[in-house]
Amino acid sequence: MMRQAGRYLAEYRAVRDKVDFLTLCRTPELAVEVTLQPVRLVGVDAAILFADILLPLDAMGAGLRFAQGDGPVFDRPVRSAPDVDGLREPEVERDLGYVYDAIRLARRELAALPPEQRVPLIGFGGTPWTLAAYLVEGGTSKSHGHLLSWSWQDPAGLARLLARLAGVSARYLAGQIAAGAQAIQLFDTWGGLLDARRFRELALPPVLRIVEALRAIDPRVPIIYYVNNGGHLLAELATLPVEVLSVDWRVPLDRVRAAVGPAKVLQGNLDPTALLASPARIEELTVELLEQGAGGGHVVNLGHGILPNTPPEHARAFIGAVRRHGARVVTGQAARV
Amino acid sequence: MMRQAGRYLAEYRAVRDKVDFLTLCRTPELAVEVTLQPVRLVGVDAAILFADILLPLDAMGAGLRFAQGDGPVFDRPVRSAPDVDGLREPEVERDLGYVYDAIRLARRELAALPPEQRVPLIGFGGTPWTLAAYLVEGGTSKSHGHLLSWSWQDPAGLARLLARLAGVSARYLAGQIAAGAQAIQLFDTWGGLLDARRFRELALPPVLRIVEALRAIDPRVPIIYYVNNGGHLLAELATLPVEVLSVDWRVPLDRVRAAVGPAKVLQGNLDPTALLASPARIEELTVELLEQGAGGGHVVNLGHGILPNTPPEHARAFIGAVRRHGARVVTGQAARV
Repeated sequence: MMRQAGRYLAEYRAVRDKVDFLTLCRTPELAVEVTLQPVRLVGVDAAILFADILLPLDAMGAGLRFAQGDGPVFDRPVRSAPDVDGLREPEVERDLGYVYDAIRLARRELAALPPEQRVPLIGFGGTPWTLAAYLVEGGTSKSHGHLLSWSWQDPAGLARLLARLAGVSARYLAGQIAAGAQAIQLFDTWGGLLDARRFRELALPPVLRIVEALRAIDPRVPIIYYVNNGGHLLAELATLPVEVLSVDWRVPLDRVRAAVGPAKVLQGNLDPTALLASPARIEELTVELLEQGAGGGHVVNLGHGILPNTPPEHARAFIGAVRRHGARVVTGQAARV
Repeated sequence: MMRQAGRYLAEYRAVRDKVDFLTLCRTPELAVEVTLQPVRLVGVDAAILFADILLPLDAMGAGLRFAQGDGPVFDRPVRSAPDVDGLREPEVERDLGYVYDAIRLARRELAALPPEQRVPLIGFGGTPWTLAAYLVEGGTSKSHGHLLSWSWQDPAGLARLLARLAGVSARYLAGQIAAGAQAIQLFDTWGGLLDARRFRELALPPVLRIVEALRAIDPRVPIIYYVNNGGHLLAELATLPVEVLSVDWRVPLDRVRAAVGPAKVLQGNLDPTALLASPARIEELTVELLEQGAGGGHVVNLGHGILPNTPPEHARAFIGAVRRHGARVVTGQAARV
């Protein structure tokens, strides 16, 4: 489940009461503690490293902080070619080594769990376009005016930023694989801002560069690409050389399947707000989701991050419904085909 | 152009320097002055009444104010069935009469302009789902947690709110027609939050109720329905009994045309950030837009509101490109068909 280690768990809130968000990210023992909470408490099939996609930008000297309740803020936003040149080239082992320490420790702790909890560990990062969306705006934004202005007024300058972010991301994620991450998820939270042509021109090339770099390290590590709000980009998603396409809740999985063909595994895409419905309704919605996903490989997931006000027993109802109905629905569907 | 009377015009900013936003909305002489600015200064083919979709909610007692730079705030958000019962039933002529006065005055002033500037006047309102998105959250929101929680936990209570908003909107917009609005645009800024089924269940029924009510008043007044971020809702849009479908910039008009058939007029959908590109590039993009829209009726427009940092000469370049190339492209396309 996206954002499965998070505020909806009292056990997570107890850790956060003691340390701020960035300290939690930078303290491997604590990051691993919250990484494993959903495995122990909710019963998910994979652990997702607790980290933030913006950490590499901090390592590039952009001055990341998290304002109380206000999300991320960059003290030094990047809005011009000279700003791009001013970014530091991080040494990932030195500047982001705490992430790799957390991965190594998480793998050891997972190996020591009871057999049914020895799940794989997923590492992740943001796509260059999405990292730029935060770095250029100086934090979260509704309109992305700085980023989009730049994209029209100085596309070459922005392309240089995206290329640098691709290079740093490729090294950062290769390091995650080397440390023990068993799959890599790329989050493109803001790719859906763009129409299809601009997505192909701006957002896709740096993603392809990262994918190529990771394939060169270890072609067996699956890459999951998540795009939010990308229902208009299905033709582009079909061309992506990744194993798993993860989509938001707006677009039914059978429509995605029709557009991308049978070979790709689809991940998603229950509306995270549906976990606020009753457990009985969650079960019904999960069965429908399984039916929509049954035309090929399907990693059941939410279509966006779990909400902080989700009751943990509703998250467990979702997981339980997948376990109870998954095999039946998929087998039934196969029989009908 | 969506939001064509706005901050990108120095003449608008000069008016706003003297009065706050709500005072501007509530002072017919000033509202008409800014309504006519884009007709005089940019050369658009229609005047769009200067108003705000949230005004009827203020008339219902929700306590609307505009915080400096922070967008709308409701002092009394509505989050439960008893809150719905606590809303006042406005008398539109008394409580929103300043809007009707502005419409009557704008029509008179338009009639007195030189012939080429005697353009029609478009009135507008928000859809009930979109009005609820602001009223329930108490203002703008990124996650719409209150609205979406309510939709799952007490759908009947939320349906009561939406039905009341539909009733008030129908009377408010019927009054706009009676005062002289020559077309009505319905803005569904947040309909695209929903997947197709939830859109059909939650957002569509109150829109249909408004459309029916307006048809009963005067079936000749065209209704324009705008949905933001609705590329996944094309099948639903095809069923809407309105003359004009207006869509955001993410979905190419030829794809919308293929989904909705030849009878509907499409409105849109240049990426508003494209007006930050050079005038030469704006001209190229406009020609492409005309080609995408040439399969049927097309009202050229932006895909979302014009940005405050748009140079006015770029807005004029857009309008000029439509005038220079519109007839040629559409005729050429017709010749190829």
